[in-house]
Amino acid sequence: MEDTLHDHAVIPRTDDEKDKVLKRLRRIEGQVRGIQKMVEEDRYCVDILIQISAIQSALKNVGYEVTERHMKHCVTDAIDKGEGDDSIEELMAVLKQFSK
Amino acid sequence: MEDTLHDHAVIPRTDDEKDKVLKRLRRIEGQVRGIQKMVEEDRYCVDILIQISAIQSALKNVGYEVTERHMKHCVTDAIDKGEGDDSIEELMAVLKQFSK
Amino acid sequence: MEDTLHDHAVIPRTDDEKDKVLKRLRRIEGQVRGIQKMVEEDRYCVDILIQISAIQSALKNVGYEVTERHMKHCVTDAIDKGEGDDSIEELMAVLKQFSK
Amino acid sequence: MEDTLHDHAVIPRTDDEKDKVLKRLRRIEGQVRGIQKMVEEDRYCVDILIQISAIQSALKNVGYEVTERHMKHCVTDAIDKGEGDDSIEELMAVLKQFSK
Repeated sequence: MEDTLHDHAVIPRTDDEKDKVLKRLRRIEGQVRGIQKMVEEDRYCVDILIQISAIQSALKNVGYEVTERHMKHCVTDAIDKGEGDDSIEELMAVLKQFSK
Repeated sequence: MEDTLHDHAVIPRTDDEKDKVLKRLRRIEGQVRGIQKMVEEDRYCVDILIQISAIQSALKNVGYEVTERHMKHCVTDAIDKGEGDDSIEELMAVLKQFSK
Repeated sequence: MEDTLHDHAVIPRTDDEKDKVLKRLRRIEGQVRGIQKMVEEDRYCVDILIQISAIQSALKNVGYEVTERHMKHCVTDAIDKGEGDDSIEELMAVLKQFSK
Repeated sequence: MEDTLHDHAVIPRTDDEKDKVLKRLRRIEGQVRGIQKMVEEDRYCVDILIQISAIQSALKNVGYEVTERHMKHCVTDAIDKGEGDDSIEELMAVLKQFSK
């Protein structure tokens, strides 16, 4: 991770913004524990797959949230400073990894 | 979930099989908590996205594992009993949801 | 491609089955030409992306169709002959490539 | 498509840019025709799936190319004019559709 452009969000997240994302991530953590329980109880594979797919979906939504905020703050800030291309190329690299 | 074909794995998972999946799921749970910490510390969006993408990838691998075992046991068993089509259609439905 | 298990569909496709898939593929071919026209006319990027995404979706549906038929015929046939595992592993490999 | 922000690329594509994308799209068109031939010849399902997956991958790359150019030109231009948020939200909507 040492080669990304910053260590912290360029425009700090507000407490509200953090809370919203944290709430979603805690819910996802609970869903992952839920699947562990399903495996322990030897539940039907398809039911487990449905739950994995629900987590994928929830994670994707967190990813979209983070991406949109990133564009509206960090990338916008970079463009305002005339350094947009580096920031856009960095984002493209992570989007490509994402959709793999 | 009430409309899947079974409640439990048709051929019970061995302890080894359970352990292998559980180990992966606990690691994923830890990764989700790691992202929560990154959000609390207001870490850079792109670093957070890279971590989300790593979890997506790990979850996908668990999904593949579960799918392959499902085909080799539950679907195979259904085909042996002449009830393959229902089992295959059920699997297709979840694969479609998965790749969304 | 030389290392897949067969050269031809194990249970030959009927003319009806072929027609159905060919109709979809011709439609997709037309959509790809449509995007070429949009690029020539210098149309708005987002409109082009929407069209690319429509083709992705159409191709995915052809892929599902082919996968389902493959499971109901070739994989089922392999399982009946006691050679299911090779066929399932071959399918898993292509599903992994697919969801990349 | 009537509700996207523009009809044409905000900064017109150069002939070079058009040629590069068109070349890729023509190649993809050829690949789609190649799959039609495979279906007509009743080729093995897995070989067809591998080819579909190759087209998906090629289309995704065109999508990335178009997205990156869009960010570097249209979105950057919108941000410079203080209208970045609309442009970013429009892009996010299409990215979400894309990764479905």
